Amino acid sequence: MSRAVVLLSGGLDSATCLSLAIRDGYDVYPLSFDYGQRHKKELLSAKKIVEYYEIKQHKIIQTGNVGGSALTDMDIEVPEYKGLPSIPITYVPARNLIFLSYAVGYAETIDASVIYIGVNAVDYSGYPDCRPEFIEAFEKVIKVGTKGGVNGKPIEILTPLVNLSKAEIIKLACEINAPIHLTTSCYKGDEKACGICDSCSLRLKGFEEAGIVDTVEYIKKGKD
Amino acid sequence: MSRAVVLLSGGLDSATCLSLAIRDGYDVYPLSFDYGQRHKKELLSAKKIVEYYEIKQHKIIQTGNVGGSALTDMDIEVPEYKGLPSIPITYVPARNLIFLSYAVGYAETIDASVIYIGVNAVDYSGYPDCRPEFIEAFEKVIKVGTKGGVNGKPIEILTPLVNLSKAEIIKLACEINAPIHLTTSCYKGDEKACGICDSCSLRLKGFEEAGIVDTVEYIKKGKD
Repeated sequence: MSRAVVLLSGGLDSATCLSLAIRDGYDVYPLSFDYGQRHKKELLSAKKIVEYYEIKQHKIIQTGNVGGSALTDMDIEVPEYKGLPSIPITYVPARNLIFLSYAVGYAETIDASVIYIGVNAVDYSGYPDCRPEFIEAFEKVIKVGTKGGVNGKPIEILTPLVNLSKAEIIKLACEINAPIHLTTSCYKGDEKACGICDSCSLRLKGFEEAGIVDTVEYIKKGKD
Repeated sequence: MSRAVVLLSGGLDSATCLSLAIRDGYDVYPLSFDYGQRHKKELLSAKKIVEYYEIKQHKIIQTGNVGGSALTDMDIEVPEYKGLPSIPITYVPARNLIFLSYAVGYAETIDASVIYIGVNAVDYSGYPDCRPEFIEAFEKVIKVGTKGGVNGKPIEILTPLVNLSKAEIIKLACEINAPIHLTTSCYKGDEKACGICDSCSLRLKGFEEAGIVDTVEYIKKGKD
């Protein structure tokens, strides 16, 4: 049974990735980070998802962060969703790069052949490190910069959600019974989701388009 | 004055890089890691080097490690130097990849234009992530996966030591008055350097070839 490291934030996309990896027959090793994110609700969701699947191994890496984002600095306010084309203040510098780098190290250590990451370049917040170009460039780094890569067995990065819309991801998640009722998407991380940040807005729009009811609790759904 | 993030382990090569960055007129931001390495002597050296230059900012990122190396797992023994062509057990999976990823995030946050890293592909331990191919592939990741890269101002990785022999690095360090008397190279990290691990062996050979006396204390110099 091949091993897969699955980057698990606790959000909708990463939970769907974990379910896909299990469906695809991998022995899964979820990997989460406690990186000074604004709230720990996401991490708690990750733990609940791991429990749901009765997975024994869940690596949580405690790590310092480099600041500079509304998701990590408490003195930068989380903005409302505006759908602007620029890179927003919720962008965490090099976050996926750091997470994938750890995943590579972990995969090498436990001899996993693939890494699942739930990046998505359709209904996303405009972060440059969610795009296929980034993943391709990163795979080249694995080929030349790791033991397995140099020896001809590079770890592969799997991005099964990259070309799906949020509605398509939600439909897929329901088909494979991913525990999306346990996920957290809201950037604010209060008990109930705010319903107005980028992440809530994309999630709500996705559920609406998919014609599926989101069972997560919201303070309000959208700006109205 | 442009800012430079300098990866500073506390060893000979990174100390030389820091001195080069200062000589080149950068406002330097040393970045070190407390990653569960076998010993903290290296980190102590990094702190002494920062004090030596009276640098105010020294970011030390506390971070979990992924295991799988003699440099981080206390139950894997540090081997004696044998000069074998294979990748040794002291290889830490994805270490430079993780360090550079953080450096990119930090550089984006503080608006630094370059990152100095003291990788060397001549007198080195055979780690794949010390080679120019790795650095080139990583620069491509920066171009497509970061805010600055996407906006046309990618952070540059500077590797001034990559093609120098250890003897040449030592000569250069002396020319620019790098505080190499404060550095730690030994993998074991006891009070005195062991003199027989890969890192000590390469260092001792370098000093001998350079015709310079290493003022660091050793238990014994070489296997004799």
